[in-house]
Amino acid sequence: MSEKSFVLSELVALIAERSKNRLAMRIEGEGSVRVSRFMPPQHAGEGDMSFLSDPAYAEAMKASAASVLVMREKDARAVFGEALPARTILLCDNPYAFFAFASQFLYPVERVPGIHPQAYVEEGAEVDPTATVDVFAVVRKGAKIGANALISAGVYVGENAVVGADTVIYPNAVLYHDTVVGEGCCIQSGAVLGGDGFGFAPFQGEWVKIPQRGRTVIGNDVEVGANTTIDRGALEDTTVGEGTKIDNQIQLGHNDRIGKHCVMASCVGIAGSTTVGDHVMIGGAAMINGHITIPSGSAIGPATAVTGWGKEPKQLTGFFPALGMREFKLTAATITRLPEMRKELKSLQREVEELKALIRKGEA
Amino acid sequence: MSEKSFVLSELVALIAERSKNRLAMRIEGEGSVRVSRFMPPQHAGEGDMSFLSDPAYAEAMKASAASVLVMREKDARAVFGEALPARTILLCDNPYAFFAFASQFLYPVERVPGIHPQAYVEEGAEVDPTATVDVFAVVRKGAKIGANALISAGVYVGENAVVGADTVIYPNAVLYHDTVVGEGCCIQSGAVLGGDGFGFAPFQGEWVKIPQRGRTVIGNDVEVGANTTIDRGALEDTTVGEGTKIDNQIQLGHNDRIGKHCVMASCVGIAGSTTVGDHVMIGGAAMINGHITIPSGSAIGPATAVTGWGKEPKQLTGFFPALGMREFKLTAATITRLPEMRKELKSLQREVEELKALIRKGEA
Amino acid sequence: MSEKSFVLSELVALIAERSKNRLAMRIEGEGSVRVSRFMPPQHAGEGDMSFLSDPAYAEAMKASAASVLVMREKDARAVFGEALPARTILLCDNPYAFFAFASQFLYPVERVPGIHPQAYVEEGAEVDPTATVDVFAVVRKGAKIGANALISAGVYVGENAVVGADTVIYPNAVLYHDTVVGEGCCIQSGAVLGGDGFGFAPFQGEWVKIPQRGRTVIGNDVEVGANTTIDRGALEDTTVGEGTKIDNQIQLGHNDRIGKHCVMASCVGIAGSTTVGDHVMIGGAAMINGHITIPSGSAIGPATAVTGWGKEPKQLTGFFPALGMREFKLTAATITRLPEMRKELKSLQREVEELKALIRKGEA
Repeated sequence: MSEKSFVLSELVALIAERSKNRLAMRIEGEGSVRVSRFMPPQHAGEGDMSFLSDPAYAEAMKASAASVLVMREKDARAVFGEALPARTILLCDNPYAFFAFASQFLYPVERVPGIHPQAYVEEGAEVDPTATVDVFAVVRKGAKIGANALISAGVYVGENAVVGADTVIYPNAVLYHDTVVGEGCCIQSGAVLGGDGFGFAPFQGEWVKIPQRGRTVIGNDVEVGANTTIDRGALEDTTVGEGTKIDNQIQLGHNDRIGKHCVMASCVGIAGSTTVGDHVMIGGAAMINGHITIPSGSAIGPATAVTGWGKEPKQLTGFFPALGMREFKLTAATITRLPEMRKELKSLQREVEELKALIRKGEA
Repeated sequence: MSEKSFVLSELVALIAERSKNRLAMRIEGEGSVRVSRFMPPQHAGEGDMSFLSDPAYAEAMKASAASVLVMREKDARAVFGEALPARTILLCDNPYAFFAFASQFLYPVERVPGIHPQAYVEEGAEVDPTATVDVFAVVRKGAKIGANALISAGVYVGENAVVGADTVIYPNAVLYHDTVVGEGCCIQSGAVLGGDGFGFAPFQGEWVKIPQRGRTVIGNDVEVGANTTIDRGALEDTTVGEGTKIDNQIQLGHNDRIGKHCVMASCVGIAGSTTVGDHVMIGGAAMINGHITIPSGSAIGPATAVTGWGKEPKQLTGFFPALGMREFKLTAATITRLPEMRKELKSLQREVEELKALIRKGEA
Repeated sequence: MSEKSFVLSELVALIAERSKNRLAMRIEGEGSVRVSRFMPPQHAGEGDMSFLSDPAYAEAMKASAASVLVMREKDARAVFGEALPARTILLCDNPYAFFAFASQFLYPVERVPGIHPQAYVEEGAEVDPTATVDVFAVVRKGAKIGANALISAGVYVGENAVVGADTVIYPNAVLYHDTVVGEGCCIQSGAVLGGDGFGFAPFQGEWVKIPQRGRTVIGNDVEVGANTTIDRGALEDTTVGEGTKIDNQIQLGHNDRIGKHCVMASCVGIAGSTTVGDHVMIGGAAMINGHITIPSGSAIGPATAVTGWGKEPKQLTGFFPALGMREFKLTAATITRLPEMRKELKSLQREVEELKALIRKGEA
C-alpha cells in the first residue's frame, strides 16, 4: 500500500466517478490545495484532511490546522456560522463515505502490471495486458483475467475461471475451474472459491460422492475474507450478489444464493441451498440452516442458530447468555426441567382456581 | 472436469466394479445405447439419463424422451405396467446411488500424468509414473505418491508423507511430514493435514510448546473439505476412518480418532483426544469436547455443544432458539432466574397442598 | 522432525538457558549419561528418560529401566527414601515442563539454512544467512528474516514484513505487507496474518471499503494455528502479546489487542477492537463481541457467546445443553414462554398469599 497525494478538486472528480455521482460534494474555498492523508482534527496540518461524522466533535474542527475539513453543510454552518471561512471545506452529506472513497485513492493496492517470469500462465489463458500475475501464481487455460486485475503470488486460477477488471486476489487464494469473480472485488488470502459442494448419495451405510458440476459466481464489488470458503453448486451455481461483503472464515454451501449488498461478519456458516435476499446483515458466528429463504432486509444477530424463517423480513437473535460457572451449571440443569415446570405451573393455576372456588362457596 | 460418454452396458460394468458389486443393476432394453449426462426427465433427450428417486415424480418419467430411465423395479412396474416398454430402463434398487457412481465416470477429475517441469520433487521421493504432480507442487524426500493420484498446483507433501492411489489433492492444500492419506480420497484446497496439535506444558503462568510427534492418518475414500484442519497427534496418531466425509472448515484436534463412514457438515470443531465411532452424523457448527467417546451410530444436531456422552448411541441436539430482539432480551434475562423460579414453584406447590389440607380440615 | 541425542548435563544446560534459569533442575547421579527420547517408565530402557508428573504413578518409576528418571524431589524421596540410588535422577520441580523443554531439543524442527534456488527473494529483502527460505516461498522487498528463522515452501512474506529469529512459518502461510512476527514464534500452515480488517462505510444501502492501514504485530513466542486469521488494524495495529498460544481456525478482527500468555482453543472468533488482558484462557468455539475489554486472568468456557464484561476478572460459560431430540424440541418451545411463565408464577404467588389471608380470616 503506497501513499499518494492529490489536488483536492481532482480527488473529488475521481470520487464522483467511482461513486457514480451519488455522493454530493462541494468545495468551499481553494480546490487546488494538495492533500495526501486523513488525520484527526487535533493532529492534522498542511496536506491533511479531517472529517467530521459525529457532530459532538464539531468544535475540534474549528481549531484544526487541517488543509481540508470534510463536513456536512449543516455542521459547517453550526461551527463557522453562515459565512464560511476562507479555508477549504469539503461539504459532503456523508463525510464517512467520503473518507472511505478518498482513502481508496490515497492508499491504493500496489501492483506492477504484467506477468511475472516465474508465474505459470497456461497457453489458452487470456490475461489483459494491464493485469498483474505475480510470481508462482497459476492461471489455467481458458481463464480470463480482466484489466488492472491483480493475481498475487501463489494464487490459483483454474481452467475457464474469470476474474473481472480491477479485482484484487491476495496470495495463495484458490479459484477452482469455471469460477467467476466480478469486477472490483477483493478476495483475501486463503479464500477458496469453487471447492466441491458437500454432496453424497447414501448407499448401504456409506456415502458415494456426487461430482459437483455447478459453479461459484461472485458479482461485482464483493469482498471475500481470508480463509472463507464458497463451494461450487451441485448442478446450478452458488451465487453472491453485487456489493456483498463477506468477512473471514465464512462458509457458504453449495447452491446458496446470496443477494446484493449483504454484510456477513466472520465465522458465519450457511448450509447448502439457502437463499439470502438483498441488504441482509448477519452477525459473527451465526449458523444458518440449509434450504431456507431469508427475505431482503432481514438481520441476524451474532452466534444465532437460524433453522427457519417466515415470509417477512425481521431481526432474529438467540444465544445462551454467558454466566458464572456455578450459575451456569444450575441454570443448564434447570433448563431441561422447563417443560415439566410449565406443566406444574399450569396444574398449580388450576388448583388455586379450585381453592378459590371452594373458599367462595364456603364463604357463601 | 470433462464430460465423457459411455455405452450403457460399459458404464454399468464400471459401476459394478467401483461399488464392489453391491449395487444391484439390470438393463431392460438396449444396453448399447450411448449416454453422456443426467437430465431431469422433462428436459432429457437423446443421450441423456433420468433417474427417479422419489416415486411422486414417477409420471414425468413416462413422458420423458431420455435415452435411459433409471428406476427401482417396483416404480417401473407402477409406471409402465408388467410389460416394460422397448425403451431402455436401468432397473436399480438405489437410483440416487447409481446417479452418484455414474456421475463419477461421466465427470471425472481431469489430470495429465507426470511431474510438471516446474514442480519440485525432492530426490528420494517416490512418485508413481501414472500420478500427476502439478506446477509449483512440492513433494519431499521419502514421500510416496500412488498410482493415478493428483497432487495439484501449490500442494505441499511433506517428508515421508504418503498419498494413496487415485487420491485427488486440490491446489494449495498442505500435508505435513509423515501424514498418511489413503486411496480414493479427495482433499480440497487449503486443507491442512498434520499441523501441530495444540499441546503446551504450563510453566509459571506461561506455556511451553510440546513438539507433536504423532501423525495424521486418513483412511481410504475420505473427503476432507476446503480449509479443514486435522492436527497430528501428540505421541499417538490422529486418525480418520475409511469412507468418512468431512466438510469445509472443520477442526479435528490431536489424538482424535474418527470412525468409518461418518459424515460431518461444515464448521464442526472436535477438541483433542475424542473418539467418534462409525456411522456417526454430525451437523454443521457442532462443537464437541475433548477426551470423550461418541458411540457408533450416534447423531449430533447442528450448532450443538457436546460436553459428554453415555455408553449408548443416541441423538443429541441443542441450541438457543432464534427470537425477535425484544423477545430474546426478555428471555435471556429470565433464563438466569430459572433456578430461582424452580424453587419458587416447588415452594408454591407445598403451600397449595397445605391450603388444601387446611380447607379439607375446615370442611370436616 | 529429526531425533537427536544429548549428554544429560548438556541438555540440562540448554534447558536452563531456554527457560531463562527459571526451571530448577538438579542431577543426582551420573550427568554424562546419553539420552535421546522419553518413554513411559514401564517401556523405557537404555538412553530413555521417564518423567513423573502424577505421584499416583510413582511406583512404576522405581521399577523402570530408564536411564534417567525426572521427578520432583519429594516424589523421589517418597519412592527411593532419603538415600537416592546410584542411578541418574533429574530432580525438577516441574517434570512436565522439563519434558516440554527437553522435547524441543530432542525433536527440533528440521531446516537447511539458505535460500532455495527456486524461492523468490526480491531485491531489497534482508534474509539472515542462518535463515531458511524454502522452495516457492516469496520474500518481498523491505522484508527482514531473522537468524535461524524458517520460511517454508509456498509461504508469502509481504513487503516490509518482519520475521524474528528462530521463528518457524509452515508451508503456504501468508504474511501481508508490514506484518511483524516476533522471535521464537510458530505459525502453522494456512494462517493469514495481516489480511484486511472488515471495514466499510455505509453509503446509500451499500458498503464502501475502507483501506486498512494498520498492521498485525505478533510478539515473541507466539503460536498461531493452522488456517487462523489475524486481520491488520484499520489505523492502529492489531496486536498479540508475548507467549500467547492461538489454536487453529481462530479469527481475530482488526484492532484487537490480545495480551501476553493467553491461550485460545480452536474455532474462537473475536470481533474487532476488543482488548483481552494477560493470562486469559478461552475455550474452543467461544464467540466474543467487538469493542469490549476482558480483564487479565479471566476465563471463558467453550462455545460461549460473550457480549460484554465488567471490570473484574471472572469465569464465564454458557451454551445450550445438548438434549435428546424430543426433549430439545419441547424445551426450545417452552423457552420462549419463560417471561410469561415468570409472570404467571409471580401472579400465582400473590393469589396464594391472598388465599392464605382469607383462610386465616375465616379461621379467626
